[in-house]
Amino acid sequence: MADRAKERRDTQYGLLTAIAGEAGVSLGTVSKVVHRRRDVGEATRARIEALLERHGYVRPWEGDRQAPRQILAVFRDLSGPYTLEITRGIVEAAGDMGVEVIVGTTSKRSISGWLEECVEAGARGVIIVISMLTEQDQHRIVEQGLPVVLVDPLSAPSPNIPSIGVTNRNGARMAVRHLLDLGHTRIGMVAGRSHSPAGAARLHGYRAALTEAGIAYDPAIVRATDFDFGEALTATRQILRDREPPTAVFAASDAQALGVLEAARQHGVAVPGELSVISFDDTLVAAMACPPLTAVRQPFQRLGHEAMRVLMRLADGRAPASPRIELATELVLRTSTAPRNAAQA
Amino acid sequence: MADRAKERRDTQYGLLTAIAGEAGVSLGTVSKVVHRRRDVGEATRARIEALLERHGYVRPWEGDRQAPRQILAVFRDLSGPYTLEITRGIVEAAGDMGVEVIVGTTSKRSISGWLEECVEAGARGVIIVISMLTEQDQHRIVEQGLPVVLVDPLSAPSPNIPSIGVTNRNGARMAVRHLLDLGHTRIGMVAGRSHSPAGAARLHGYRAALTEAGIAYDPAIVRATDFDFGEALTATRQILRDREPPTAVFAASDAQALGVLEAARQHGVAVPGELSVISFDDTLVAAMACPPLTAVRQPFQRLGHEAMRVLMRLADGRAPASPRIELATELVLRTSTAPRNAAQA
Repeated sequence: MADRAKERRDTQYGLLTAIAGEAGVSLGTVSKVVHRRRDVGEATRARIEALLERHGYVRPWEGDRQAPRQILAVFRDLSGPYTLEITRGIVEAAGDMGVEVIVGTTSKRSISGWLEECVEAGARGVIIVISMLTEQDQHRIVEQGLPVVLVDPLSAPSPNIPSIGVTNRNGARMAVRHLLDLGHTRIGMVAGRSHSPAGAARLHGYRAALTEAGIAYDPAIVRATDFDFGEALTATRQILRDREPPTAVFAASDAQALGVLEAARQHGVAVPGELSVISFDDTLVAAMACPPLTAVRQPFQRLGHEAMRVLMRLADGRAPASPRIELATELVLRTSTAPRNAAQA
Repeated sequence: MADRAKERRDTQYGLLTAIAGEAGVSLGTVSKVVHRRRDVGEATRARIEALLERHGYVRPWEGDRQAPRQILAVFRDLSGPYTLEITRGIVEAAGDMGVEVIVGTTSKRSISGWLEECVEAGARGVIIVISMLTEQDQHRIVEQGLPVVLVDPLSAPSPNIPSIGVTNRNGARMAVRHLLDLGHTRIGMVAGRSHSPAGAARLHGYRAALTEAGIAYDPAIVRATDFDFGEALTATRQILRDREPPTAVFAASDAQALGVLEAARQHGVAVPGELSVISFDDTLVAAMACPPLTAVRQPFQRLGHEAMRVLMRLADGRAPASPRIELATELVLRTSTAPRNAAQA
């Protein structure tokens, strides 16, 4: 279908170009007439309309009732590396499906505004990324049957709105087990805030791994912050001043892990010689960190692909196979983790 | 038709007046909310939005298809922090104008494919970010009068297609002068490739600053790489092995600067104690580097705003005020640069 659509587009495009030539106007002017814009003189409009009719041109949206080929991807903001990876995942998956992606944020327009816009503009649906939905938003989505997929929502999961994320708890558990395998027993964590389901799940994974290894949870070397560099920097400086500082730290996101690295540098603590650091996300900044970060990788491409797949399914009026999809994470080894130094024992 | 539009306008006006009365605010306040201006309190905004919705108000530019409110922003890929900053700048500026942004890449569809899509879909225009335009693309844009604005194009500038960027040469000159002011005289550079106009201009700025200070250009401590972490890492390792290694390095982008930091770490060279590092871009990763990077800041928000402003002007059939706009850069001081150490003298 994508091929047929493209073929038709090419033919139509060629036709419009020919008509522009015949009418002695630019293609832009022909396009304006096709789209019934008002900023074209009447005589020109009439001449072009006549040519369009003579050549049997059919406006795409009038010729068939083919489903619109746009979706909305709405973010809280576009300020972190995570955002970029998700955007790329969605845009590429959509490109494969011949669908266009309108990218927006909730800084200028509320979630409910975007839901309205989806209806107004006739888009196929909305992917909402790490945002808090009000009860009213959720109610409306369900009541009106709007095709909506949530990626890493901040609000509590609703069984009626499909959401996609990764296996945060298990990924965190893998991260801590990696540190345990390297001989670390004093492991700190710069965690996310508990109101973030992803953040809470990563903390649970950390605790589960410690429990499995028979290590007591010590809140003195655990701090909850936003997924933010500056807050993690401050938190890590506190952790490093503990009477018995950790030999390894697990950060709940790349932005936080970079804060951990900077705190270590400020304290003159070598990474990984004196402190192993492991991160969660593996966005572009992880590989470019100093040292490059060992990290739990979120499969961003697959997240985008799954979000699109579920959204298209909803847009076709079919129920999602599952209200919640969790994709597996993967441990990526780089140079920020090392065996516990004998000197640290 | 004009009459019908007027009639609708009058009805809408009556509706807005009624809503103002109901909300107990002025019509001006209602109008601000309708136009999504920011100078209205959140509570008031929410109350008015709720009333607008209840009464079925439709914003004129959202309700009719005659003046499409979409533009395309096309990137080579969505893989670097620069991309995210530009996307954000465009999406936010467009949001202020009530315009939606379709984000795409040239990985699945060529530039000419996107130009076609702009016409077919009736979008107002296309912003093309760091891409190479073929002569055919350029010819088509000019011939067909397509509204197109280039941001940091890789192709040679065309006087007929407006382009926007920053004062790359002067920004680079400022960066090197900062290093000179700190007493450095042996200054290396990890430059961009010469086929990139931005990369070439930054190298020229570096050379100009050296010349002004009476320092000979030494190609042994200058390497050209892509704006890429891994290539910069390799190049810096070579530079640091020079018989007379530099005490400071200027990197032509943040991705490259992170490679410089990692090379220094691998060589056991302290930043900024033994090596000052200055970057160009100041994307989100600069502030999160270890140590945080002193950098020449590109005004991403303004770039997005200017690109939108020029594009809307073209879409309205007006010529751009200038075929080329260069925005000023700004030096942001962080901790990766320091006075030349006496020990280095």
